[in-house]
Amino acid sequence: MTVLIVGSVAFDDLDGPHGKRTDVLGGSATYASVAASFFSRVALVAVVGEDFPESAMSMLAGKGVDLVGLERVPGRTFRWSGRYSDDLASRTTLDTQLNVFESFRPALSDSHRATPYVMLGNIHPTLQRDVVSQCEGRRFVIADTMNFWIEGQNAALRETLRHIDALVINEEEARMLSGAHNIVRAAEAIRAMGPRIVAIKRGEYGAIVFEPDGVFVAPAYPVRDVVDPTGAGDTFAGGFLGYLAHASEVTPATLRHAVVVGTTLASFCVEDFGLDRLVRVTRSEIAARYRELARIVHFATEDEVARFA
Amino acid sequence: MTVLIVGSVAFDDLDGPHGKRTDVLGGSATYASVAASFFSRVALVAVVGEDFPESAMSMLAGKGVDLVGLERVPGRTFRWSGRYSDDLASRTTLDTQLNVFESFRPALSDSHRATPYVMLGNIHPTLQRDVVSQCEGRRFVIADTMNFWIEGQNAALRETLRHIDALVINEEEARMLSGAHNIVRAAEAIRAMGPRIVAIKRGEYGAIVFEPDGVFVAPAYPVRDVVDPTGAGDTFAGGFLGYLAHASEVTPATLRHAVVVGTTLASFCVEDFGLDRLVRVTRSEIAARYRELARIVHFATEDEVARFA
Repeated sequence: MTVLIVGSVAFDDLDGPHGKRTDVLGGSATYASVAASFFSRVALVAVVGEDFPESAMSMLAGKGVDLVGLERVPGRTFRWSGRYSDDLASRTTLDTQLNVFESFRPALSDSHRATPYVMLGNIHPTLQRDVVSQCEGRRFVIADTMNFWIEGQNAALRETLRHIDALVINEEEARMLSGAHNIVRAAEAIRAMGPRIVAIKRGEYGAIVFEPDGVFVAPAYPVRDVVDPTGAGDTFAGGFLGYLAHASEVTPATLRHAVVVGTTLASFCVEDFGLDRLVRVTRSEIAARYRELARIVHFATEDEVARFA
Repeated sequence: MTVLIVGSVAFDDLDGPHGKRTDVLGGSATYASVAASFFSRVALVAVVGEDFPESAMSMLAGKGVDLVGLERVPGRTFRWSGRYSDDLASRTTLDTQLNVFESFRPALSDSHRATPYVMLGNIHPTLQRDVVSQCEGRRFVIADTMNFWIEGQNAALRETLRHIDALVINEEEARMLSGAHNIVRAAEAIRAMGPRIVAIKRGEYGAIVFEPDGVFVAPAYPVRDVVDPTGAGDTFAGGFLGYLAHASEVTPATLRHAVVVGTTLASFCVEDFGLDRLVRVTRSEIAARYRELARIVHFATEDEVARFA
C-alpha cells in the first residue's frame, strides 16, 4: 500500500547544546516521508525552490519516495531557524521564511488521488480539506495541525476534522483545541469533532491514543543521548501511517503496533541532527528497539493479578 | 510481611477547582500507610498533637495499621495549606506549620526494629539515616526526599542514599539531585550514589524505574475526573512497598507489579479529596484497574515484530 504525504519541505538552521547546524534538510513532510518509507511506498507532495539540491532529491529517491508530486518553482525553499534550550525541553523560533511554501496549493495527479493512506501535514486547514476531497481512493486519512491554525482558522479546522480518521497532535495543542486540560476530556472533545482516533504526542513521555476500542499508552523509548528533537513528532506520524499502510488494515492491534513503530522511529530521529540518524537506521535496528519497548512496558499476566484479586 | 512507614501525619487545607476543604487528614506517612495496608500489615511511626482525633485513629486501625509507633505529644499536629491551579498542574503552598513534627525524633520499638520492609518518608536525611540504623531486621528500604533537603542537606542526604535500596522521587527532584536533565542520565547518576533502584514519579505520565535488570515504564492510569492530586506520590510509594512486602521478595517481576500497583492506587487517590477515595477502594477495584493498565500498554508479540523485522 502507498502512503501520500502532503506538507512542508524545508531547510532548518538549528542551535542547541550539541552545537549549530545550518541548511539542515527538514520540514514535516520530509521527516514523515523518510519514516514511512521503512514500511511502505511513499508519494511526497510538497513544494521546493530552485535552491533545493540534487543530493536531497537523491536521498529521498533512495528511500523509494515518489517525487513526482514534489513541485519545484522559482524562489527559495521554506526556511526555519530555531534555538533549543540547554536541557532541550523548549525551543525558540528565531526566523521563519515561508518563501515558495507561501503559495503552495497541492494539486494531485491521478495516481496520487488513488492513494489509500494519506497524511495531511501541518498546512492551512482549507488546503488540508481540499487535499482530502481530491483523494478519491482514500481509506485512512491522518492530519496534524498547530496553535496558529487552532487560533486563527478554527472554523476551517473544524470542517477539516469532520473528514479525517485520525488527528495526530501534541498535548498542548490538544488542550488548546478542546479547551480541556485533562487529557481524557480533551481527547473526548476532539473525537466529538470528527476524528475517531486522536493520537496525542507527549514528547519524552511518548504518546497516548484514544480510539473506539479504548485507550493505548506507548511510552517513548528512553534515549540517553538526545542531540536534536527537531522532526520527532513528524517522524512519529510518518512511521505510524507507514506501518498501517504496510499492515494494510486499521484494526485495534495494527493501530497499537503503528503507534509503537512511530515512537521507535522518533527515538532514533532525536539521536542526531535533522535526518542524519533516521536515514541510517535499519529495519533490524527498528525491530530491536520495538522489542525493547515491549520489554520496557511488560508487567502482567492474569496469574499475577490473581495473586491479589 | 510487615511494612514500617516513618514520616509525617498532617492536616491539610486544600483549595482548587473542585472547591475548598479544611482539616483534611494527610501527611506522607498517612497516605503511604493506607496504600500499603491493602497488601500487607503496616506499622506507622510518626508524631501527632493533642488535636489528633479518635476518628483518624479508628480509620487507620480499621485498615490494620499498627499505631504503637504513633506518638501523641503536647501541641498541634503538622498543618499544611495549599492552593492548586485551575488545571491542577501546579500548586502553591500557602502555609506550613510544622508544630509537633518539628521535634520528631523517631525511636523504634524492638518489634519495629525487626520489620523487613521500611519506608523513610520525606524527613531530614539525618533522621532517615538514624531510622535505617535502628532497623536491624531490614531487608528492603525505600526513601523519599525533596528539594529542600537536596539543596540544604546535600551531604547528609548523600550519606543516607548509601544505605537504602530504592529512592522514590519526582522528576524535578531527580534532575536537581543529579544535575542532569536527561532522565536516563539522571537515574544513572543517582544509582551511582547508592540506591540500586531509582523510581521516578512523573505525575500524570506515571513512573519510570531504573534497576539493575533494566528500565521499566508504567504509565499513569488515565483518570477522567481528577479532584485532588494531594498524596498521590506517597500513595504510589506506599502501594509499591506494600505490594513488595506481600510478594515477600524483590525480583525484577515483583518490582514491576509493585510499580503498577503503586500507580493504580495513586490513580484512585486523586479521584477525591485527601484519603476519601483511597479508604473506600476495594481490592477487586484495584485488581480491575491493574488489569486495565495491562490492556492499556499491551501491544506486541514476537510474531508481530517478525512481520517487519
